[in-house]
Amino acid sequence: MSSPKDFVLSCPLPLTDYPTVTLAHGGGGKLTHQLLEKMILPAFQSPLLETRHDGAVFGIGESRLAFTTDSYVVSPLFFPGGDIGTLAINGTVNDLAMCGARPLYLSCGLILEEGLPMDTLWRVVKSLKSAADAARVQLVTGDTKVVDKGKGDGVFINTAGIGLIDYGQPISPASVRAGDVVLLSGDIGRHGIAIMASREGLEFETQIDSDCAPLASAVQKLLASGVEVHCLRDLTRGGLGTTLIEIAESARLHIGIEETAIPVREDVAAACEVLGFDPLYLANEGRFIAIVPQKDAERALAAMRSEEPATGTVRIGRVTDSPSGMVTMKSRIGTSRIVDMLSGEQLPRIC
Amino acid sequence: MSSPKDFVLSCPLPLTDYPTVTLAHGGGGKLTHQLLEKMILPAFQSPLLETRHDGAVFGIGESRLAFTTDSYVVSPLFFPGGDIGTLAINGTVNDLAMCGARPLYLSCGLILEEGLPMDTLWRVVKSLKSAADAARVQLVTGDTKVVDKGKGDGVFINTAGIGLIDYGQPISPASVRAGDVVLLSGDIGRHGIAIMASREGLEFETQIDSDCAPLASAVQKLLASGVEVHCLRDLTRGGLGTTLIEIAESARLHIGIEETAIPVREDVAAACEVLGFDPLYLANEGRFIAIVPQKDAERALAAMRSEEPATGTVRIGRVTDSPSGMVTMKSRIGTSRIVDMLSGEQLPRIC
Repeated sequence: MSSPKDFVLSCPLPLTDYPTVTLAHGGGGKLTHQLLEKMILPAFQSPLLETRHDGAVFGIGESRLAFTTDSYVVSPLFFPGGDIGTLAINGTVNDLAMCGARPLYLSCGLILEEGLPMDTLWRVVKSLKSAADAARVQLVTGDTKVVDKGKGDGVFINTAGIGLIDYGQPISPASVRAGDVVLLSGDIGRHGIAIMASREGLEFETQIDSDCAPLASAVQKLLASGVEVHCLRDLTRGGLGTTLIEIAESARLHIGIEETAIPVREDVAAACEVLGFDPLYLANEGRFIAIVPQKDAERALAAMRSEEPATGTVRIGRVTDSPSGMVTMKSRIGTSRIVDMLSGEQLPRIC
Repeated sequence: MSSPKDFVLSCPLPLTDYPTVTLAHGGGGKLTHQLLEKMILPAFQSPLLETRHDGAVFGIGESRLAFTTDSYVVSPLFFPGGDIGTLAINGTVNDLAMCGARPLYLSCGLILEEGLPMDTLWRVVKSLKSAADAARVQLVTGDTKVVDKGKGDGVFINTAGIGLIDYGQPISPASVRAGDVVLLSGDIGRHGIAIMASREGLEFETQIDSDCAPLASAVQKLLASGVEVHCLRDLTRGGLGTTLIEIAESARLHIGIEETAIPVREDVAAACEVLGFDPLYLANEGRFIAIVPQKDAERALAAMRSEEPATGTVRIGRVTDSPSGMVTMKSRIGTSRIVDMLSGEQLPRIC
């Protein structure tokens, strides 16, 4: 039992503002952060449970391990460039990779809705297997539950993963220093647009596929190249913008990026225009940023560019001391603006 | 990508019989086993993904680890003796314990339904924390997703867990030998009845609380007592009956149990009579069986009885060579009957 002194008894969220859970609490923006920081993290109070990391890192024997989990509730289950199965494997593989770990073993929990066509389940199972093979991880333990019709949505998947860390230095926002450079592994926004198009039945001139892909090989190339790596982060819920803000806030430093340096495919930019989305906040499932010291930038770029899906890596900005905790972006026309966290989500259930 | 030779392309389940997922596919009986054995296990084909174990066991460095996962979809969220939070912690802790592991770290993935009262979520979060403290495990990583109203059911929780195995011998049905004895850690059936009563608003003369409890301490006492332990299994979905059948089938041995030796509380027996349930198949969340050699039976009993919640441990039967793969039970009146697996479930969504 917890003692009263370390465990507040009344709900720590302002119930008058949000008496119930809203979709925005899962969107990766301000409300998601509020839920985490005001309720969940204070309740669990584990030194390993970091706000700002994709997984927990701890030692067992002589080994350093990373451990992470994500649930996947994407709608629709199948979309251009992927499906809930590829997402459930790559998402967790990528979280391990961002801890600097080589992904080894995954668990898989399925929550099925009564009435789900059996061959839909079979497509998802095949997809899980193919994605695990492609990412070189083994699914080693699992669970299947069924809920009544109308109490689920086809298939929800949880995967948890264990990876082994060989890299000796801590990879975390706390390792980021003024003077570091920010590298982005390729173009952004495709996953978000692919989901949106598929959900709403939109058609563009070209089909926009999700960028969903495993990132562990590219990260391992980077770590093996001998450069210092200060921070890694994949750009899922909340996109590049939210990720950079989290790092800047956590590191108490400023990150300045240049809009013209950020690759956005023309068709994605056009779709964003039509739909009123900002690609900075769109989810990606195969993109990450690496923050490295200036002196190592060229070698890091070369290492990342040597491996798919990071062959399009570019330098997008740098870290400075102030204004602390903020992200600013120099626009195409030369003006500078603050990049702020969205209060809700642009798109619910994108992963 | 998988190659055609190791991966059949059409759905391996007889779609004419079950074109869609039914609640019984999640009930822990025959259909759950069919889904696992015909679809999921052949698809993933990992040597670590065993049909008959509660978790995967593997080495990392010099350490042997257990890794397991379960999703929790219990309805209602709160019931006499526990709630979805205690269940999510104890269920995964107990799966690790059944691998002979000392539970160390848990992950926690929440899938929340839009509109969930925030103070309900807070109750669940507090319960997760209290149960983790009581079981001496740390929640170290997590994830929160929100689904649209009507696409979930309040809260679903997935926990995955990592534990460390010190015990040197393999604990598995394959280690069971003819001549072994079967020990049961206490009375059965309370969790199933507690859920049923709570769901249907039934009232009995006495309140029947779930037996939900962490089993790791009792298992550690047993393992530290110096006895040989051949197999451990907690008695969740499917209950004692299904668990014993799984072990008998997997070990290709016969397990004979005595009805009069199996503790069932009077109020639970009375509730079963009224509701038409067989306590043999009711889920428990704080009970397990240990299969040990005859020579170690007394010491094993003493070790288990020294620690809650196993102080009521009794000997309920023994293992013989034949009839292979079967479980038989000698009834109160001296006749013997075959214990068969249920085709569906007595109670859906009990965990």
